[in-house]
Amino acid sequence: MIPNDTALLVIDIMNPFDFKHGETLAQHTSKIVDPINSLRRYCMKHQLPTIYINDHYELWKADYKEIYKKCHNKTSDPIMTPLQPMEDDYFLIKPKHSAFYGTALNTLLHHLSVKNLIITGIAGNICVLFTANDAYMREFNLMVPGDAIASVSEEDNHYALTMMKNVLKAKIDPTGGIL
Amino acid sequence: MIPNDTALLVIDIMNPFDFKHGETLAQHTSKIVDPINSLRRYCMKHQLPTIYINDHYELWKADYKEIYKKCHNKTSDPIMTPLQPMEDDYFLIKPKHSAFYGTALNTLLHHLSVKNLIITGIAGNICVLFTANDAYMREFNLMVPGDAIASVSEEDNHYALTMMKNVLKAKIDPTGGIL
Amino acid sequence: MIPNDTALLVIDIMNPFDFKHGETLAQHTSKIVDPINSLRRYCMKHQLPTIYINDHYELWKADYKEIYKKCHNKTSDPIMTPLQPMEDDYFLIKPKHSAFYGTALNTLLHHLSVKNLIITGIAGNICVLFTANDAYMREFNLMVPGDAIASVSEEDNHYALTMMKNVLKAKIDPTGGIL
Amino acid sequence: MIPNDTALLVIDIMNPFDFKHGETLAQHTSKIVDPINSLRRYCMKHQLPTIYINDHYELWKADYKEIYKKCHNKTSDPIMTPLQPMEDDYFLIKPKHSAFYGTALNTLLHHLSVKNLIITGIAGNICVLFTANDAYMREFNLMVPGDAIASVSEEDNHYALTMMKNVLKAKIDPTGGIL
Repeated sequence: MIPNDTALLVIDIMNPFDFKHGETLAQHTSKIVDPINSLRRYCMKHQLPTIYINDHYELWKADYKEIYKKCHNKTSDPIMTPLQPMEDDYFLIKPKHSAFYGTALNTLLHHLSVKNLIITGIAGNICVLFTANDAYMREFNLMVPGDAIASVSEEDNHYALTMMKNVLKAKIDPTGGIL
Repeated sequence: MIPNDTALLVIDIMNPFDFKHGETLAQHTSKIVDPINSLRRYCMKHQLPTIYINDHYELWKADYKEIYKKCHNKTSDPIMTPLQPMEDDYFLIKPKHSAFYGTALNTLLHHLSVKNLIITGIAGNICVLFTANDAYMREFNLMVPGDAIASVSEEDNHYALTMMKNVLKAKIDPTGGIL
Repeated sequence: MIPNDTALLVIDIMNPFDFKHGETLAQHTSKIVDPINSLRRYCMKHQLPTIYINDHYELWKADYKEIYKKCHNKTSDPIMTPLQPMEDDYFLIKPKHSAFYGTALNTLLHHLSVKNLIITGIAGNICVLFTANDAYMREFNLMVPGDAIASVSEEDNHYALTMMKNVLKAKIDPTGGIL
Repeated sequence: MIPNDTALLVIDIMNPFDFKHGETLAQHTSKIVDPINSLRRYCMKHQLPTIYINDHYELWKADYKEIYKKCHNKTSDPIMTPLQPMEDDYFLIKPKHSAFYGTALNTLLHHLSVKNLIITGIAGNICVLFTANDAYMREFNLMVPGDAIASVSEEDNHYALTMMKNVLKAKIDPTGGIL
């Protein structure tokens, strides 16, 4: 079902959830851990690249372990720990919302001959949506499994999925439907 | 009220409205003509730059008159004609949704020492929203008068304004409130 | 000899030559008019796109005729007049040295499915070299005919060609050799 | 002498020197170690940021230690070891020649309110020159100490300095002159 020239993006999953509505976002995010892990296993098995792109929390360093340490707490642990990147995964930091802004993501995707992106992570209506739009402008084909993105409010999440479907022509089938 | 280092953006106002829901978008757009013209007059009087950024409809030419001609029809006339750019206005074309993607807009704004943007035009939840996000990532301060952007659906327009207010920290007062 | 997915770039050929060493640059540029025109004819015949990219001389408008008028003088006439773009040519403005910086060039080239660039114009060691480097970073294959670029000094021109050959892996055969 | 809003860039100094002319480049680079270290000490003392930007040697990870390990050998040791970044230095990877292409450098510099750059490293006529040009297009003021950049050939290094002085308006005084 998934073409060979596909990569999986995992956005902002290293997160302290220590801001306003952070607890709510963490609750919603806990439900996307399993779907994202299904996608990761699929990609590993089929040798498709998995690329984490994450806020750097003022570290300005693409050091997964330092970011993990900085974000780790009781709320984030059940999300971050099962979603830790594997040795072969790519791990990029992003300075702003979009995973394409001020990062090597576009160059990496071309280097890997990727044409299709599965976009997952948080928050669905912010970093995920703006990344999806930048990907669409760069002419990638998008899959955004509805059960693999989360937002503070259900309504926001739903709206983002609708936008990505209608405006960015993304496939938004659930994980089970695309694997 | 409006700082000196401000520019007015007018997005995709040259438009044939000949697509699905185009008539509806034209109806909603007809209501933002007067507010945009108030903003244009204010900017002209205070010597603030007005920058049109528009789809080029496969012309790939930043020639306002050709684009006007290509888009002109009974539906678009009442919108496009009163909003025609003045001799001193800037007129850029954009190849994709965001006014910053593949354009000289960022360079022009730096050249003009602009720090604040008033964003107007259509569609509120697509090109306006994605332009606003790109502007925010580039650290411009945003004003988005709610009566100067239009979308196909009122709900979409409202949602875009809410996003721009909450996520992009835009001021969304109506035109009358910011002038 | 030239693959189908090739475009011709003509850089900064609309030029008043009214700066220091401008007369010298004009003299050197007069010698590249014929080679560029051979390339243009070849591209027209084989339906390959020709893309002019030019400084806008503070007009910030991609209006070929206004730029021509602004640059026209006794020195520039013998260069600019025979090199005027045809109706179907693309004409972009650039705000800085590189034809890729703050322009829609990359998007246009992807839209046209272009993989190979023939780069011509002036000055060889400035705008041509920096454009070539940006093209190389974006993974275009480069042809830079040595008789179709000009610089103020012969040494500079030679150096730029050497750089483009050694660092950017450009073919630098003369026009006659690549057509 | 050096304004407060200045950052030091150290380009591609983590390097195996295992390519054609690598030994020669290493010899030339060994002479710039002390000048770069003088600049680093000055910046540390005056709390100016030092930013390393380096090729990632197909690691695609901004992990200084892994890159150091990958590049370390008898030739590179006398260069890389004394130039190792400090805990507080920034360390970015770049996918291509220019330190601005596909990196967060521009965003980081804005975040740090930097307006002036001291550019050092290798190779002077390739990554340093193309970085300098990208910095110039983004309107940074440039200082490029002639004794803190190195190239394979002296002539290339000299040429790059001349280009940066004449075209990019860089100050090219030796380290002793700018500190």
